[in-house]
Order: sequence, then C-alpha cells, then structure tokens
Amino acid sequence: MRWMRRGHSGFARRIGYNPKEVLKYFTSGESHGEALVAFLSGLPAGLEVSLEFVNRELWRRQQGYGRGGRMKIERDTAHILSGVRHGRTIASPIAVLLENRDWKNWQEQLPVEQGDAKLHKRVASPRPGHADLAGALKYNFPEARYVLERASARESAARVAIGALAKVMLRELDIEVLSHVVAVGGANVEHEVPWEKIQASCSREEVLLNCAEPEAEKRMKEEVDKVLRTGDSVGGVFEVVAHSVPPGLGTYVQWDERLDSGFRSA
Amino acid sequence: MRWMRRGHSGFARRIGYNPKEVLKYFTSGESHGEALVAFLSGLPAGLEVSLEFVNRELWRRQQGYGRGGRMKIERDTAHILSGVRHGRTIASPIAVLLENRDWKNWQEQLPVEQGDAKLHKRVASPRPGHADLAGALKYNFPEARYVLERASARESAARVAIGALAKVMLRELDIEVLSHVVAVGGANVEHEVPWEKIQASCSREEVLLNCAEPEAEKRMKEEVDKVLRTGDSVGGVFEVVAHSVPPGLGTYVQWDERLDSGFRSA
Amino acid sequence: MRWMRRGHSGFARRIGYNPKEVLKYFTSGESHGEALVAFLSGLPAGLEVSLEFVNRELWRRQQGYGRGGRMKIERDTAHILSGVRHGRTIASPIAVLLENRDWKNWQEQLPVEQGDAKLHKRVASPRPGHADLAGALKYNFPEARYVLERASARESAARVAIGALAKVMLRELDIEVLSHVVAVGGANVEHEVPWEKIQASCSREEVLLNCAEPEAEKRMKEEVDKVLRTGDSVGGVFEVVAHSVPPGLGTYVQWDERLDSGFRSA
Amino acid sequence: MRWMRRGHSGFARRIGYNPKEVLKYFTSGESHGEALVAFLSGLPAGLEVSLEFVNRELWRRQQGYGRGGRMKIERDTAHILSGVRHGRTIASPIAVLLENRDWKNWQEQLPVEQGDAKLHKRVASPRPGHADLAGALKYNFPEARYVLERASARESAARVAIGALAKVMLRELDIEVLSHVVAVGGANVEHEVPWEKIQASCSREEVLLNCAEPEAEKRMKEEVDKVLRTGDSVGGVFEVVAHSVPPGLGTYVQWDERLDSGFRSA
Repeated sequence: MRWMRRGHSGFARRIGYNPKEVLKYFTSGESHGEALVAFLSGLPAGLEVSLEFVNRELWRRQQGYGRGGRMKIERDTAHILSGVRHGRTIASPIAVLLENRDWKNWQEQLPVEQGDAKLHKRVASPRPGHADLAGALKYNFPEARYVLERASARESAARVAIGALAKVMLRELDIEVLSHVVAVGGANVEHEVPWEKIQASCSREEVLLNCAEPEAEKRMKEEVDKVLRTGDSVGGVFEVVAHSVPPGLGTYVQWDERLDSGFRSA
Repeated sequence: MRWMRRGHSGFARRIGYNPKEVLKYFTSGESHGEALVAFLSGLPAGLEVSLEFVNRELWRRQQGYGRGGRMKIERDTAHILSGVRHGRTIASPIAVLLENRDWKNWQEQLPVEQGDAKLHKRVASPRPGHADLAGALKYNFPEARYVLERASARESAARVAIGALAKVMLRELDIEVLSHVVAVGGANVEHEVPWEKIQASCSREEVLLNCAEPEAEKRMKEEVDKVLRTGDSVGGVFEVVAHSVPPGLGTYVQWDERLDSGFRSA
Repeated sequence: MRWMRRGHSGFARRIGYNPKEVLKYFTSGESHGEALVAFLSGLPAGLEVSLEFVNRELWRRQQGYGRGGRMKIERDTAHILSGVRHGRTIASPIAVLLENRDWKNWQEQLPVEQGDAKLHKRVASPRPGHADLAGALKYNFPEARYVLERASARESAARVAIGALAKVMLRELDIEVLSHVVAVGGANVEHEVPWEKIQASCSREEVLLNCAEPEAEKRMKEEVDKVLRTGDSVGGVFEVVAHSVPPGLGTYVQWDERLDSGFRSA
Repeated sequence: MRWMRRGHSGFARRIGYNPKEVLKYFTSGESHGEALVAFLSGLPAGLEVSLEFVNRELWRRQQGYGRGGRMKIERDTAHILSGVRHGRTIASPIAVLLENRDWKNWQEQLPVEQGDAKLHKRVASPRPGHADLAGALKYNFPEARYVLERASARESAARVAIGALAKVMLRELDIEVLSHVVAVGGANVEHEVPWEKIQASCSREEVLLNCAEPEAEKRMKEEVDKVLRTGDSVGGVFEVVAHSVPPGLGTYVQWDERLDSGFRSA
C-alpha cells in the first residue's frame, strides 16, 4: 500500500510547529481615533519582512470600484513598532501602528481625555444591519457613537497588515493565498478560474474591482454604477484560494481543531 | 432617547457569567469502540437535568428518512457519570457515557490492547470527500481504519448529549433552540416558517424528516426515495432557530469574540 | 561563535509540534460517584501505551506512609475507553475510566437521579483550609457535600492516569520526569540528590514514602508517626525532576508562553 | 443553616461577567525599540480612567533603591491610543503606547529595516541566569542581542500600564491590590503587616524601597548598600495583598480554573 505519504510531518518539520496553535493576533483602535494597532505573535524568527509588500497589501485594501471619499484621504503605511529588526522577524510579538490621518479633525469631538461634552457627535439613529443597536444595548451606551467607532470597516486595515505578515511566513513554505471577486449583484463568474488568472488579476496595478475575468468584471462594474445612481449598495461574493497547501492541516479528532472551526486566538 | 434598554446586563445578571467564555466541551470515542464520552464543563449549579429529555434528543438524532441499518441497532441512552446529583447539576464537569452496542462485534478486530494483527479490518481505499486520505497522511497511518473510526457520524451522538445539557441551561433563561430541514435536493421550503410550526414539527413523535411544512416534506421524501433506488445520496439544508435570545450576545470589539466566530473551547 | 546549537529545532522536528500548545486535559468525577474520567487530547499517533505502566503509576499514587483506610479499598486500574487501539495511540482523544469501588455504598445517598432526599449526608461544618466554605458560597449550596465530592484528593487519580500517558510521549523523546520527597515536617534532605538515586527510589517495589535518601526517609517516617499519634497531619515538600529536557522549551516572548506560566488548557 | 451567603453571585451581578475568563492582555516591544505597546481587552464600558493614576503607577515602577542609570533617562507616560474616550472605557480594546526615550541612540544599531550590519551590537557572551543562551538556541540566533531586547525588565513597564487599568475596574468593586517588600537579602519583615500600613507605604511620595516597616526598610537599604559596593546584586521578596475580595473567585472544579492556576490569556 503506497498511497500514504508523509506530507504533513514534512510540513511540520519545516516550520517546527503547528501555526494554527501558535499564531495569535488582535487589533485595537477606533475609526476616528489616533491610530489602529495590529498585534501579531508567534511568527518564527528569521523571516524576511518587506515593508513594501505590507504596504502594497494595505494599498490594495483601499482600492475599490465606487468607494467613497475617505479612501482618498488616507494612504495607509505600516509603522512597525516591534518584533522586526534588520528586516527580519525576531520571534518577539509584532505591533504595527496605522495612523488615522483623519484624526486631526476628530481630536476635540472624540478625545481620550474628558474633553468638552458639547462637541460630542451623537449617533442617535442606529443603522439597520449594523452593530449599532445591539452594541449600545450590550454596553449600555445612550447612543451609538462608540459602537460605530469600533464596529467599522476601518478596523480591517489592521487585519490586512496582520494578513500580510502571515503571508510572509506562508511564502517560506511556498504557500500563496489570494482572493478575487466572483459575484457582484447579478453579475457572476460562471466557471472556476485558473490559479494563474487569479495571480495575474491580483498583481495588476489597478485593482478597482479584482475580478479575474475581464468580461465578468465589466458586468460587475455596471452593477455598481447602477446602484451608485440611486444611492444604494449591492452585495458581492469573493473567493479565497490557498495554493500548494500540504494535506493534513487541521484535524478531525476534535470539533475545535478542524481547519474550518475558525482560527483560535490562543 | 428611549431606544436603549439594558437587555444584556439583565441577561448577564440572571446567569451570572458569559456562557460563551465559560462552557467547554469535548468528546472522545470511536465508532466501533466501547463507548463515546461527552464531556461538558461550566454549567452553573442547580439546573434540573431530565434524563428523559436528554434521551429524547439522542433518539431524535437516530431518526431519519432513508437512514441505514446501524441506527436500528442502537438506541442511545445517556449514562451520566459525574456532575449531576439528585437530578441537578453540581457545577462539577459532566461526563456522559454512551455505549456502542455494536462494540461486542468489534472487540477482537479493534482491541485497546495489542490483540491479533491478523483480525484487523484494513480500509485501503480512502473514501472521496471524507477525512480518510488526509487523516492517514497527517498521522502516518498505512491505511484509513483509525481515521474513519473517529471521523464518523457516530461522534455526533456525544455532541447531541452535550447540546441537550446546554439546552437545560438555556431553558432557565427561556431561550429555546430548534432546527428543521428546509431543503433536500431540489425540494425547498419556500417561505420563512413561523416559530410555532417549527416547535410543532420538533415535538412530533415521528421525526423521520423534520421539515415543518408537510407539503415540502413530502417532496423531500421523494428526493430521498429517488436516490435510494440508485444507491446515491442527496444533500440538504437545515436551519437552526434560537428563540427569545436577548440582544447583545457576542461582540464586535474583537474578531474572536463575535457570536459567529465559532464557540471557543476555552 | 560556536555556542549556538539547534537544540530546539531538532526537538520540534522529532515531535512535529509544540506539545505545550497542543495537549489538552481535563478530568471529571466525584469522590463517591460511579467513576472518574480522565480526558487527554493531542498525543501523536503511534505511541506504544503500556497499561501495566499506567497501572503502576496509579498504584504508586495509592501508596504512602500513614495513609488512611480508603487507599486499601481501591486498587485503581485504568480502563481506556478511546484513543488507543492495538496498544498504540491513534491521535483521537483518550478517555480513561477509573471506577470508584466505594460507589456501591453511596448510590443511594448520592444518586445521579433525584433519589430520596432523606438519605443525603449533609456536610454542615465546612473544613478549615478546604474549598468547602468558598465553594458553597460560590455555587449557592446550602451545605458543603457537593463541594467536597469534587474538591477531593480522589480527583488526583485521574491526573495520574493523564500524567502516565504524557510520560509515554516524553519517553519517545528520551525525557523522563520523576519526583521524590525532600521534606516532611522538620526532616529534610540536605543535599541535591543525584538523578540515579531518584530513579532507584522511584523503582522500588515499596514506595511508602518516596525519599531517595534512606537516612532522611527514616526521619520523615518518624515525623509521620509522631503526628499520627495525636491525630494531626504534617506538611511536606517534594521535588519534580525532568531529565534530558532540551533547552528552549517555553519562551520569554510573552507572559503566557513561559514554561512556568502554567500549562494552558487550550 | 445560615453560614451560606450569596457572595459570588452578588459579585458577578455587579460586573456582569467573570473577569478571569474575559480579560486578555499582551505586550509587545523591545528594550531599545521605538516603543512598547500594552494591549488590554475585556474591560467593561464606562469605567473612569485617570491618566494621572496610570502615570503614577508607571512612576512607582521606576523607583527603587540602588537602581541604575536608565531609570533616570525615562519618565514613562501612558499614551492611550484606543479604547478610552471622554475619560472612560468604551469596551473596545485598549492599546497604550510607552515610548522608549533611549531609542534615538539605538535607531542605527537596531533598525526595523535592514540597516547597516556593521553597526549591530552583538552580545556574544550569554549572561548566566538570563534567557540569553536558551533563547538563542531556541530561535537559532548566532548571538543573544535579540533575546535580551525582549527578555528585558523594560517589558514590565507595559505590564504596569495594564495592571493600572485592571485596578481601575477593581476599584469599581471596592477591591484594592497593593504590594510591599518583605525581604531583601537577610533583612526581613518579621510579622504580618496590617493593611493600613501597606496603604500608607504605597502612597508615600518617595518609594525607593517600598517596605511598610521603617525599621526593616532601613536594614534592607543596608543590604543593598553592601552589595552595591562589590558590584553584586541581592534577592528580595515582596508580597501582594488583595483587599476586600469576595469569596468564591476561581473554582475547584477543574485544574485550569483555579485562582492560582495562572491567568489565562484567552
């Protein structure tokens, strides 16, 4: 019987431990606060960290067809505070600071210190489909400002920085993780897209709407144009593809150790 | 501003802690081993545990339209080893033993002790879509027997016992969690089903295919009949509905504390 | 510069992952319940499990100079329910059942079901220095019976079974962990005891008081004799020694990843 | 039977959850890097945060009889980046930046970017009793600079900031946690020190050696003076006292839920 190979143990040997168990990440920061901080612990020592790569990932997050004005205000750049020296990881936890360029306009409305209560910009109408109402109920806030400061798309910038650092490790193992858009409103990619096309799409200099099939992308843009005219929004679907992953990640032995059980924070 | 209510703090007050953080559960046991053990820690003391209720949940798991022969062999009954006294939880961890009635036929083929290697029933052809191949690669097994012993639907019996005990706590808070089938193959429930109909369906004495809409259930059974004739199987969808849950469970403040981030084991 | 060696990565390579992160264990069971269950998850597949070794460890726990009558009632034997087949681990979680032989005398006083409340043996005087009072306050029990059922030395039998299984893994790595008594009351071992003497002491057939220095052991027994006469008890100290551990276990990079930060359950 | 009170459930009611389970904290930052970041998640919303109090705690950490020159360089001040608005917690994770004032002298020797390798200050002699050797072995560093950058007393500044924020929550519950020195070398505090004396000692404006008994403190200073003359160091013992803690924190039901099992990170 020769169909069994030692795929996983070879994988484990190369990285020395099970990354699912060891990587921890957290983010902090509010939408109009001074900065976000991305926190990542558990990367092995010696990985080469290219700031250019991390910043390109941050830039790609800021693209998007039909996106609003704020994206133009800020071009995020990763300010690494710890865990990297001489261009390489040193095993210590990594903290990345992402400044909010808009903060200067909010310092008086949302200060860390007590400040002037009259300047506070209340959000008295909770937005449907957002965390506003549930969050205010949970934390007993009289209105939703503090909720939307944290339950905000801005937070995802910190996750992108963390994801970029995780990709630095995966690259050492020849694993690549990419994503692309497969549906916007009624416009779909009909067939499975080959890996090479996804790679090509992700490396474009202009990634307004990262669909790997130009025809479908054109139809998707039309869907966005349509709702933009009416002030509405439209849903979409994207696909994440991990390439050259060894078999045997995760396990069936316990419910919380499955690959699809969600990464565990600790 | 009167739309803010203290829903969550009232909820927390009644149970004294955040159940997401405190409940831990694990299962052990193989498909043809002596027994499964369901392990649950973190229930508060003083909850009334009805064995009849736990056993009815186990019985419901064993129903199913078109299910195979094994379900007839075993009528699971929960054998509580710890954590319950005088019919109530005592805060100690609960262990529930679920005997495998089929075990007596497997004692020699799959003994805990070394036994006779010639009696081992190898599984040399990994089943597509199962954990067989990846599991054997991961753990370096020369064939897949040990994988399918654990990566088995049998394990779900232990989860049902745990779920029944969790429902005991939720009932104290007037929260009820039920599920029903909304699609089998091409047969769907077209509209949202009212809570009362789901309750009625779940309390039926015969739950061969727990769809709350009789017409749709009839079509679903036809889908099963069709594939049974050809020896094939057919996919389905079920919906889980939690009733009278207070707002504010989970939180937006960190990725791993969201309600939909997966329960954490610890 | 030659003082740097690759100790840790060699260690990690041999076991394929970081055991601190992956091993999980829990126990359940009360002192006068039907059984304890020891639960251990995360052992790699293929480790040879000697029941004789596990049972010897359980037997050693039951020895002790001056110990009371219960130890004579029960000679624990590990009843492995899952996770071991053909004498080897199969990566699935291991559950070990340890029956309480005394249970037959307690079935009516402490039943899982409601039973007869009049037979309940209340513990109305909380013992000083035990969990009795704090436990009853915490869980709102009107007396301490349920507390002492769980906060009991009996629970340590389940930990010994788990420890024995952990030693099975460590042995594969040539790591041995032993312990010995270094002080009882005023009687001390004055000097560091060589490894070989500790090994010899632990392998004795009679381990009533496992001190590796015969002279000191004699004085320790006299300390026990003295308090036995007055119905008192006496404190002691034991030392745990891990032999041939590679450097670099644990880490300084975060407070909760230190070797001495306590094993984490998950 | 009236000795049972509902201490714990009252405690839980006031804070709405079990703090042991919910608080998470981490630190990042190296000794000669740009800054430390303290990260704390899980504080309830609405707690008043006094920067003055946090900064006083940081100042107290920097005191010490016989301490070296670096303490004079830096007077730490907490720069709160997130999680606090209008002087109160808002339930979001808190990040506190602590700048390393010494960084300007190290930017070229220890840059985040590749920099000039010739400027690197190697630490080729691992210090005995420190993490230097084990750390370099573990992470495969050719010398110990990166180890001592993280395995450094400087990191404790971030923990002090976190501890100060935790005290903010405890104060709401009328719980106070203080510490004081009870031994330095051969100089001991002989008796238990009353709470009021510890409070008085901790509130002194000069806390060079925070012993609550003036006579003992004088002898302790002499111990320090003695070793200072020879360039040696001397060990000490301090005691942490938590005042007005309700009974029933932690639990006996599982090994990793005990109060003394170490805080769990998640």
